[in-house]
Amino acid sequence: MARIRRSEKTRENLLEQGIHLLSEHGYHGTGLKLILDTVKVPKGSFYNYFASKEHFAAEILDTYSAQLLQQFDEYAAKSSDSPLELIENVYSIMVKTFEAEGHIKGCLLGNMAAEIGGHSELCTQSMLRTLEQWKSRIVTLIEQAQLIQQVRTDIAANQLADLLWCAWEGALLRMKIEGNTDTVREVLALLFTQVFAPAKQPV
Amino acid sequence: MARIRRSEKTRENLLEQGIHLLSEHGYHGTGLKLILDTVKVPKGSFYNYFASKEHFAAEILDTYSAQLLQQFDEYAAKSSDSPLELIENVYSIMVKTFEAEGHIKGCLLGNMAAEIGGHSELCTQSMLRTLEQWKSRIVTLIEQAQLIQQVRTDIAANQLADLLWCAWEGALLRMKIEGNTDTVREVLALLFTQVFAPAKQPV
Repeated sequence: MARIRRSEKTRENLLEQGIHLLSEHGYHGTGLKLILDTVKVPKGSFYNYFASKEHFAAEILDTYSAQLLQQFDEYAAKSSDSPLELIENVYSIMVKTFEAEGHIKGCLLGNMAAEIGGHSELCTQSMLRTLEQWKSRIVTLIEQAQLIQQVRTDIAANQLADLLWCAWEGALLRMKIEGNTDTVREVLALLFTQVFAPAKQPV
Repeated sequence: MARIRRSEKTRENLLEQGIHLLSEHGYHGTGLKLILDTVKVPKGSFYNYFASKEHFAAEILDTYSAQLLQQFDEYAAKSSDSPLELIENVYSIMVKTFEAEGHIKGCLLGNMAAEIGGHSELCTQSMLRTLEQWKSRIVTLIEQAQLIQQVRTDIAANQLADLLWCAWEGALLRMKIEGNTDTVREVLALLFTQVFAPAKQPV
């Protein structure tokens, strides 16, 4: 029983460290040895936990996604924000996290998509799941915002959510190149205050 | 003399194959051996051409950028498109290229930014140069389009160019995850036909 608990704990540690290391160094840039040394697991026992590095990476993506969605849902549950404010604040929290990490990590999903998207079927499936789960929350909020005229209704919520996702992920690449979040903040502000805004009524 | 020419040719071949291999497999995912085997260069002589893999990657980025900008400028020189049509057509040509490549490569700049942006100073500097050169062309065209009321003027050309760059790079990540260009095409159409459009005049 104690052994099972210790084994589960090690598995969780491997996934948690995997999130940090893969976010910073990428899939191919993160050697298994680095992860195992960090968690203090002997090299030979890695395959007791995961079938392969690819399986490990897919589980890392699922774990990252579950954590992100849980934070989203917890924030939404306790928030009294309007639908559009809620989206803005969730993104603002993520920007602050990336700033605190020194602009070097960015979004694990985006980084992995750039590096191995389409190459690893297992990881690509995990990316698609994460994308869908994130997007469905954003679409619901945009639809709510459209109902109360916070957001323009001449573009479908689904399309606005895609534009936001893409602009955000691209802006995180700018963050990594530019070493700051100026473009991320500029693009988010542009989307939320001008692009998403309903057309002004003629006076 | 013949030796110098052969040496230059080999160097060019290494850079050309480097573009293809790094676009598909990433920086860490592309071993030097694969590149050298492809170009049929003995392993020991790589360092006659480049000081390190990092120097090689920075030159690959510069070469990729120079090719892309040359294609842009050649297309612009012979085109009779309006400024906005010119931007749309340049992006449309890139979409078709990525489709022909099987959706697996995407933009080398974006892929490298995700994987090693901020880690390699040499490569990051090359990415910044490419970004600026591309953006200055887009900003000029958007300003021209604004002058003839093809594009809204309540958002600065510089900001619209940033939004386009970010949305495009993010959409290419979607292409790699989704294995098609549906989102890329959707987001570009949304930007060019609705987001960039001037506000409709009240009738």
